[in-house]
Amino acid sequence: MNFSLGSERAVVGVDVGGTKIEIGAVLGDGTVLCSKRYSMDRSSQEATVSSVIDALRDFMGTTWPGAKLPAIGIGLPGDIDPQRGVWLRSLNMRISQPVELAHLVRVQYGCPVFVDNDVHAATLAELYWGAGRDSESFVYVNIGTGIAAGIVSNARLLRGTSNFAGEIGHMVVEPEGEPCHCGHAGCLENVASGGGMIQSAIKQMERYPHTVLRQFREEDRLSSSTIFRAAEDGDELAAAIAGRALRGLGIAMVNIVNLLDPEQLIFGGGVLRSRKLIAYLEEYVSRYALAGNRASLKSVRASSLPVDQVGLLGAACLAFNQEEVN
Amino acid sequence: MNFSLGSERAVVGVDVGGTKIEIGAVLGDGTVLCSKRYSMDRSSQEATVSSVIDALRDFMGTTWPGAKLPAIGIGLPGDIDPQRGVWLRSLNMRISQPVELAHLVRVQYGCPVFVDNDVHAATLAELYWGAGRDSESFVYVNIGTGIAAGIVSNARLLRGTSNFAGEIGHMVVEPEGEPCHCGHAGCLENVASGGGMIQSAIKQMERYPHTVLRQFREEDRLSSSTIFRAAEDGDELAAAIAGRALRGLGIAMVNIVNLLDPEQLIFGGGVLRSRKLIAYLEEYVSRYALAGNRASLKSVRASSLPVDQVGLLGAACLAFNQEEVN
Repeated sequence: MNFSLGSERAVVGVDVGGTKIEIGAVLGDGTVLCSKRYSMDRSSQEATVSSVIDALRDFMGTTWPGAKLPAIGIGLPGDIDPQRGVWLRSLNMRISQPVELAHLVRVQYGCPVFVDNDVHAATLAELYWGAGRDSESFVYVNIGTGIAAGIVSNARLLRGTSNFAGEIGHMVVEPEGEPCHCGHAGCLENVASGGGMIQSAIKQMERYPHTVLRQFREEDRLSSSTIFRAAEDGDELAAAIAGRALRGLGIAMVNIVNLLDPEQLIFGGGVLRSRKLIAYLEEYVSRYALAGNRASLKSVRASSLPVDQVGLLGAACLAFNQEEVN
Repeated sequence: MNFSLGSERAVVGVDVGGTKIEIGAVLGDGTVLCSKRYSMDRSSQEATVSSVIDALRDFMGTTWPGAKLPAIGIGLPGDIDPQRGVWLRSLNMRISQPVELAHLVRVQYGCPVFVDNDVHAATLAELYWGAGRDSESFVYVNIGTGIAAGIVSNARLLRGTSNFAGEIGHMVVEPEGEPCHCGHAGCLENVASGGGMIQSAIKQMERYPHTVLRQFREEDRLSSSTIFRAAEDGDELAAAIAGRALRGLGIAMVNIVNLLDPEQLIFGGGVLRSRKLIAYLEEYVSRYALAGNRASLKSVRASSLPVDQVGLLGAACLAFNQEEVN
């Protein structure tokens, strides 16, 4: 990590999400000096890109009009080519044609610009400022609308051939399960992501006339968190969905521990911050992973970074981490 | 890789297997100058260790009594601590107490000695002399009595926290399948390894009175290879077992490709050298892996190293690769 930038000079991080853009100035020790939230219009590829550019222009004009900026880091959903600085595609954000985002921003602000996907960015934040600080080898698992992971080995993010490493959401955990949009059946994302759990609930609601999930749905607060809570309170449908999700996650974590022999499993995203869920996964892994790998695994824990800041910190990390990318 | 040893000076590689020990002198370009095969007595921990020590003494006394040796590499089954040079355990070889093998050999021959498990060793041979020579990122999958993998990223072997990375044999591919000795159910090794396929055949034989596998068993030639061939010839039981094995391998390979984004999948061990089987797996991955990861994957292929030499080459590689370990 190129901390030669020093902690006195802040970089700017841009966290691009499905509903909002968060921009902030961040010091080398992870301190957020200031940040501002902007709305996101993702009605088309042009609108998405304009939202990012306009938000950054406002931030640089009003909130952080400081001295010459050392670097900007941008965390994005979807497929990214960090070497060329290109946003390749994102279904959610309607990016279907490659966008040379690093170049677009660089010509405006005259400083190096680094882009990567949001889960890789969050993994770096975890490595330098979070639960992975004292660890050379961990897997960061982000569970939100989808599920993806960042793999750290020898204190470096494992990117794979084209920066697509970490797609744990399509690990097959129910080979005889329902078809997934990827073409296979029974992917982890279908049974354990927020999106997948909500879909399961809606599909099965008719068969459970008394489920509280129906009410949650009407009140627009059906989510993996509310499903897990309803399961604990004894709701039968919620318990069935939560049970499948936990078993799927348990299998995926055992596969990961056996395959990568990490020192830590770190969970990000809102849902898996629940102590009970993490305790379940810890128990599952300690029961089913191979003895040697189990002994290597020192902790199974939630991210120690604030859930509403990890995106911004990750984006800033990309700017500090520039040496590694280039 | 420390090729400063130069290709003029050979190292000695020791490949320790369940039934025999192969020792050879190998140059930096992978040329085997000479080699000799010894029998293995694994009736006890002491017998196993003596077999290795005695074989090496014979080889150094009779076959390679040359000048001062630059290094010795030893490839072993089971759990190894390469940093401390210790053979931690191996069920098959009856190693239940840690053996300081590198030290034992070093004091006798006065040269650096490097130990690692046989699949990591074979992966390094693949990286430097085999199908992985032109690749920074690949997964080597060894399918024999058991199944294990070596992961190469950025042209380095990924070892994990305690050198236990690569345990793909216990990836869960049939969650509702039969129990595995590891405690979980439906591990890849149960459905797709030589040992697992033979066990499946024996268990189900009664229900298939006309299966040719019964005859194979009586003639002591029941193996994964003969089962795959019988399946092609239309034997019903063989087809059922082979089908499960291929589906399990297919799922595991999709999981690996999505998780690690490798450039190549390379198969070692006798069985997966069959063109048909590899073509099946290539087709499976190209159908079910995510689009980006699929595009990264340039080839799905058999090892290009001779199957009867890969163990020895791997062991020699450990000696050449010494810088990386220490």
